[in-house]
Amino acid sequence: MSNVPAVYGYHAHVYYDAATLPVAEKLKVELGARFDVELGPNSGERVGPHPVPQFQMIFKNEQFQTVVPWLMLNRESLDILIHPLTPMSEVKGRGSDLAFRLTAGRFLVMVIGCTGSEMER
Amino acid sequence: MSNVPAVYGYHAHVYYDAATLPVAEKLKVELGARFDVELGPNSGERVGPHPVPQFQMIFKNEQFQTVVPWLMLNRESLDILIHPLTPMSEVKGRGSDLAFRLTAGRFLVMVIGCTGSEMER
Repeated sequence: MSNVPAVYGYHAHVYYDAATLPVAEKLKVELGARFDVELGPNSGERVGPHPVPQFQMIFKNEQFQTVVPWLMLNRESLDILIHPLTPMSEVKGRGSDLAFRLTAGRFLVMVIGCTGSEMER
Repeated sequence: MSNVPAVYGYHAHVYYDAATLPVAEKLKVELGARFDVELGPNSGERVGPHPVPQFQMIFKNEQFQTVVPWLMLNRESLDILIHPLTPMSEVKGRGSDLAFRLTAGRFLVMVIGCTGSEMER
């Protein structure tokens, strides 16, 4: 297939709002207790390309098998976006909207997305 | 967290339309060559709860680590929905819209979804 970048890890962005903040907090505690991952602070507001407040989790390639299915089963209706870390995001600079769109837009994995879609109900 | 079902495998649904049928066909050939998975026919039309034509792939729990990241990097802009197979879907009967909504709606993993979203561009 076409050229694909090397993947050296993943970011998961767990989205929340005022109503679901306690659910996100609980999920973060569970994640920290269960997996050797790097957990970031709650953004509190919209940051970067993210549509709503979120907290970030960094995990390794080999954790994909355990972390993603666990999130799938335990997300408690939170939307979670996962994207790979690639050389492309290094070149463009982490945190830039452009880098995010290039890497995440093409390659993201959404553990349930499309908030409010028919399937969610 | 809440009760979560046992997972005994996954379905991936690769969506296509008239324009992207050749891309889907190529992807199916690559998948068959690369992974020991069960590939279904192109539906040709909307079937069940799926919004557009699709073909189905069944894969095992232990293939999540290899299959999902590969799809993420090689999907060539096709939307792909992945959902676990659980006892819940057995009880309700495979193929029923209700079962799909119960299991997939709660637990699906979307390898890029939300066709036409801002991130896709």
